[in-house]
Amino acid sequence: MVAAPVEFWFEFSSPYGYIGAERISAVAGGRPITWRPFLLGAVFKVTGAKPLVGQGEPKDSYFRRDFVRTAAFYGLTVKMPDRFPFAAIAATRACYWAEAHAPERMGDLALALYRACYRDGQSITDTEVIASIATSTGLDGAALAAGLSEPAIKQRAIDAADQALAAGVFGSPFVTIDGERFWGSDRLDQVERWLTRGAW
Amino acid sequence: MVAAPVEFWFEFSSPYGYIGAERISAVAGGRPITWRPFLLGAVFKVTGAKPLVGQGEPKDSYFRRDFVRTAAFYGLTVKMPDRFPFAAIAATRACYWAEAHAPERMGDLALALYRACYRDGQSITDTEVIASIATSTGLDGAALAAGLSEPAIKQRAIDAADQALAAGVFGSPFVTIDGERFWGSDRLDQVERWLTRGAW
Repeated sequence: MVAAPVEFWFEFSSPYGYIGAERISAVAGGRPITWRPFLLGAVFKVTGAKPLVGQGEPKDSYFRRDFVRTAAFYGLTVKMPDRFPFAAIAATRACYWAEAHAPERMGDLALALYRACYRDGQSITDTEVIASIATSTGLDGAALAAGLSEPAIKQRAIDAADQALAAGVFGSPFVTIDGERFWGSDRLDQVERWLTRGAW
Repeated sequence: MVAAPVEFWFEFSSPYGYIGAERISAVAGGRPITWRPFLLGAVFKVTGAKPLVGQGEPKDSYFRRDFVRTAAFYGLTVKMPDRFPFAAIAATRACYWAEAHAPERMGDLALALYRACYRDGQSITDTEVIASIATSTGLDGAALAAGLSEPAIKQRAIDAADQALAAGVFGSPFVTIDGERFWGSDRLDQVERWLTRGAW
């Protein structure tokens, strides 16, 4: 019997999503991971939630500090993007182009895009940047860049947000396993125990 | 040199506040703890935030499940109160009455009130219930019940919310140490490292 995959839901313009992406493989207990980028803004329209930063004080300064401190707690050096939140539509489509053409590289691409953004300070809203990152992960960057405007790829990125809502997902990162929901990079310790020792 | 206290901010109508209250002593690294109940509703009026449960799906079912699962992750058996959120004003005043008359028992009273609510299913909006819990922690329950309407105690409970805001606190539980802020029971692992090994 093949174990059902761990569904890893995330939005690229989500700092804690990046922390989750760095940790998910280590906590997945050998299960396959399904990478599910989606546009959190589309979900927020339904739930009424707001982006992490941009709500004013005392929250803005907290999240900026907490992101850096929490990343460092896990050994990661990060920096908030200069522009935040940013439009993750192109990066999201890029992942679904990879899923359609080289699904085994989708996770590598997602992580490379995230690292470019939060570790290396690159702007992953730019198609040329995305194509260059895709090439570095072994994909055909030029074909990927052209594919970002294909109707089927655009639709796939839209559908992902609907699928997230249908799965009860309302934030980033989010993990679903066998119908059980875990919200936030904070919950990955529970994900690890769930996958290695079962429900408690 | 005496180490500065760990400030533990919490609202009684906060399920994760209860988890935090159960864990705070173990993670405080021997530092004294200052228990700071406050009325989160007064803070939410300023920040625009909303109670955990009552925002509809998909959040309500998530938080109800996550609270029970997260508590069990730490070995605690809990139950959501039948009425939630509830008015924590009397329980909050009771703690400040204890602070004024027997400060060494304030933490015991806070934890006893929390356990009565989330572990034992009691309604801690009821003055008689609060007085009985106070008596069980060695306080004069009758004097405490009478003290809940003293102007100075009422004012102290109001002031606590202003002090929370002034400290940059916007949720429950919240820990402040030497000006560093940690939001949520999820952050107690970081609190523990901060207090035992210093900043990272």
